[in-house]
Amino acid sequence: MDIKIDRSAPTPAYRQLYEQVSSAIESGELKAGDRLPHIRELAAALGIARNTVEAAYKQLAVEGFAKGRRGLGYIVEELDFSVLDPEPANADAAVLIRESEEQRNRDPLGGAHGMAFDFCYGNRSVEMLPMHALRGLADAVLSDACQAEAARYMDPFGHLGLRKQIVRHLRETRGIRCVPEQVILQPGTQVALSKIASILPQSERIVAMEDPGYNAARYAFQRAGCAIRPIPVHAGQRAFLDALHASDARMAMVTPSNQFPLGFIMPLSTRLKLIEWAKGAGAYLIEDDYCCEYRYRSSPSPALRSIDEHRTIYLGTMSKILTPSVRISYLVLPPELLERWNAVHSDDYCALAWFDQALLEAFMASDAWRRYTHSTVRAYQLSHDALLGALEREMGSRITIYGKDAGLHLLVEDALGRSQEELVELAKGAGVRVYPTEQYWAHEKHPMKSLILIGFSGIARDRIPEGIRRLAAAWR
Amino acid sequence: MDIKIDRSAPTPAYRQLYEQVSSAIESGELKAGDRLPHIRELAAALGIARNTVEAAYKQLAVEGFAKGRRGLGYIVEELDFSVLDPEPANADAAVLIRESEEQRNRDPLGGAHGMAFDFCYGNRSVEMLPMHALRGLADAVLSDACQAEAARYMDPFGHLGLRKQIVRHLRETRGIRCVPEQVILQPGTQVALSKIASILPQSERIVAMEDPGYNAARYAFQRAGCAIRPIPVHAGQRAFLDALHASDARMAMVTPSNQFPLGFIMPLSTRLKLIEWAKGAGAYLIEDDYCCEYRYRSSPSPALRSIDEHRTIYLGTMSKILTPSVRISYLVLPPELLERWNAVHSDDYCALAWFDQALLEAFMASDAWRRYTHSTVRAYQLSHDALLGALEREMGSRITIYGKDAGLHLLVEDALGRSQEELVELAKGAGVRVYPTEQYWAHEKHPMKSLILIGFSGIARDRIPEGIRRLAAAWR
Repeated sequence: MDIKIDRSAPTPAYRQLYEQVSSAIESGELKAGDRLPHIRELAAALGIARNTVEAAYKQLAVEGFAKGRRGLGYIVEELDFSVLDPEPANADAAVLIRESEEQRNRDPLGGAHGMAFDFCYGNRSVEMLPMHALRGLADAVLSDACQAEAARYMDPFGHLGLRKQIVRHLRETRGIRCVPEQVILQPGTQVALSKIASILPQSERIVAMEDPGYNAARYAFQRAGCAIRPIPVHAGQRAFLDALHASDARMAMVTPSNQFPLGFIMPLSTRLKLIEWAKGAGAYLIEDDYCCEYRYRSSPSPALRSIDEHRTIYLGTMSKILTPSVRISYLVLPPELLERWNAVHSDDYCALAWFDQALLEAFMASDAWRRYTHSTVRAYQLSHDALLGALEREMGSRITIYGKDAGLHLLVEDALGRSQEELVELAKGAGVRVYPTEQYWAHEKHPMKSLILIGFSGIARDRIPEGIRRLAAAWR
Repeated sequence: MDIKIDRSAPTPAYRQLYEQVSSAIESGELKAGDRLPHIRELAAALGIARNTVEAAYKQLAVEGFAKGRRGLGYIVEELDFSVLDPEPANADAAVLIRESEEQRNRDPLGGAHGMAFDFCYGNRSVEMLPMHALRGLADAVLSDACQAEAARYMDPFGHLGLRKQIVRHLRETRGIRCVPEQVILQPGTQVALSKIASILPQSERIVAMEDPGYNAARYAFQRAGCAIRPIPVHAGQRAFLDALHASDARMAMVTPSNQFPLGFIMPLSTRLKLIEWAKGAGAYLIEDDYCCEYRYRSSPSPALRSIDEHRTIYLGTMSKILTPSVRISYLVLPPELLERWNAVHSDDYCALAWFDQALLEAFMASDAWRRYTHSTVRAYQLSHDALLGALEREMGSRITIYGKDAGLHLLVEDALGRSQEELVELAKGAGVRVYPTEQYWAHEKHPMKSLILIGFSGIARDRIPEGIRRLAAAWR
């Protein structure tokens, strides 16, 4: 074995020796049972300290290349490296990786794909984020002396200070009375829903969902082993309640303050009957209050949870009022469900970072929060008005518009009844990205085949009129 | 109905009117079919504008208290509020909430519980966090103009910039070669493990786990519907491999660089045989490299993933080198598994906040990162030495010590063979918190009944000798 130590290299001598000996073992130059050179002799031959050789040999022994035997020195271990030969069936890794990137980037939320006008849903325009306010607060949070939590596994319900701010926020804006001990922070709606589902025994995982409804919620429930019972919401309140009563659901997920995606408010009479159903069936309601802040021609309607605190699991999110990339959602559990939650999720860690929680706590406690939320709602009202005006001006009677006066998107139904695929493709040809709504329905057979989603939160307001002008031309 | 508008109140007049009318409907003072007072007349009687009355009525209509009928004005809806009466079976909410807090705070990681010396595992001392470096970087990250991602649903694999830094880090510190397209960021090890498990078809969810091993991993697998096959690691490499071969496992989770909790390195010969098993069985290995940075008397051993990139799923975490509250773990998938992952998790959002990822990217790219990791490992080496020295000095032959020279804890076995409960209770009496190890074993019957975990990462170094002195006195 030909060993060379390069004293001018940045790698320490012991490491160079370790690497050359381990390579010799891997290549088969040194074989099982071979004795490594005597420490004193090798040190002398290489002109390095004995300690250096010993450190290299110890490392080889620690990792299992060789074994130190009293009186015999270090002996090479029995090692079969042939197992590391590539499996013949292995496809080219580079090809697999490229295919994976293509597969993932088909995601409809994944960006404008080079199109000049992207009317996406949920994404935000970066200029409207409160970066300036957050800069000052971030510095203060990181300088704060009371950071013991930052160094620990946190309370699985999340940072208490943030839960307190959420309690205050819910009381002031949603008419909800609760205590921080009922609030559980989660890294997004999907995770929250799958955790809610798993407090039901496996045999009772039957969830009623609005149809159409939020597809990602449906997938989250399904992955948690739930059967889904789609309940129609486009055929009137009576049909909705009848279908619910006819179902065997143990939970029902609803969007009372702004039905997703159709955009209407659930009437009080239906809310009361929903609570009646839950009480009678011993079931629970999940109120997904995903977009309650954005209502432009009236006040936000009070939450279902504000009139029922025993059967309603409230679910809120910071994705719409802040940004989807903040990944903070929160549950308010009925007191009756706390014990079950703790039992099922007893080994949970809090999945949110301390820093985000402390930063949001500081933001919500500041005057900047109120200013920010007001100005954000006002800004999206102007975008909503710009989009609605442009749609009416450019397409008038050729479309029906749903979901006005609330939320961050409008729905448009083509009077010619063309398919969503066709409408999306025509738009794409004009450099305009609009979105299908097929995925929100539980079944392929549904009555709104020409319904297109047009979001207004991720596009600059002054680009909306031109984008809709091009869309109208493409659809003409 | 007696309506009063207080012009000096901060609540707008329309809102006061809305609240009084809705209360009258809820209380039954106004009944279904009743007509609300004529807008013009009510405005005149209250001395407010007609617009104000109209705004209140519209809000009542939006929420479903009343309905506007052409020519008839607003008519109260049919609403049955009796459903809101409390259910007789409801226990006192305050009691349920208090019980939940007690239940949750039994968590062994949940804090020192008032004890003067807490030898916890995993938690860190806050003085050692790199808050100063992070302050400057946070400001830069929030000021950066290229923040489009901050306003969007992110790539489900996570922020590309951070994935690139992790690739570099793994190459430099763990001998791992991979590309960012194989790296998937996750909000903690538990979530990562349940996502790995769910790429297996339901019928193949059989996971071999080291016994003893990381209990939270076991729970995560079980919740994902996996059957667990415990494989003994305390009885030698041969017994370990035999049990693995005799199992029907489709995945095996291992901790080669620092067995948890026993603390030994898996020899190279066993690693090679493990890869051989995986190839032969068409199974996968999950390498949980949870604590690879902390090795005090030799270099960290190379990762299993550094010699096998087709059968090994690598799992790393920032919890140990940074803090558990950062909630960032990462997977490196074999190229062969990318397609399956994308198919099963196609609707996943990234569960990590943009800001944390951008901040960690900036930290890892800075010189401060290298300085920080070196000084952290050095600091815990000193704490390790202080703890080991104190244990040998104070208890000498009365204990056996496991897991030296690595990690963030030591294990101590009582020579008298007393139970863990007794040892923990005796310590508690002296104001010292040490931890049981029962939970790491798959079955109650196991051979290490007197094994106690003593962590050294969450306690100030200069308090270690006094804490161990008291422990020795309590156990004498």
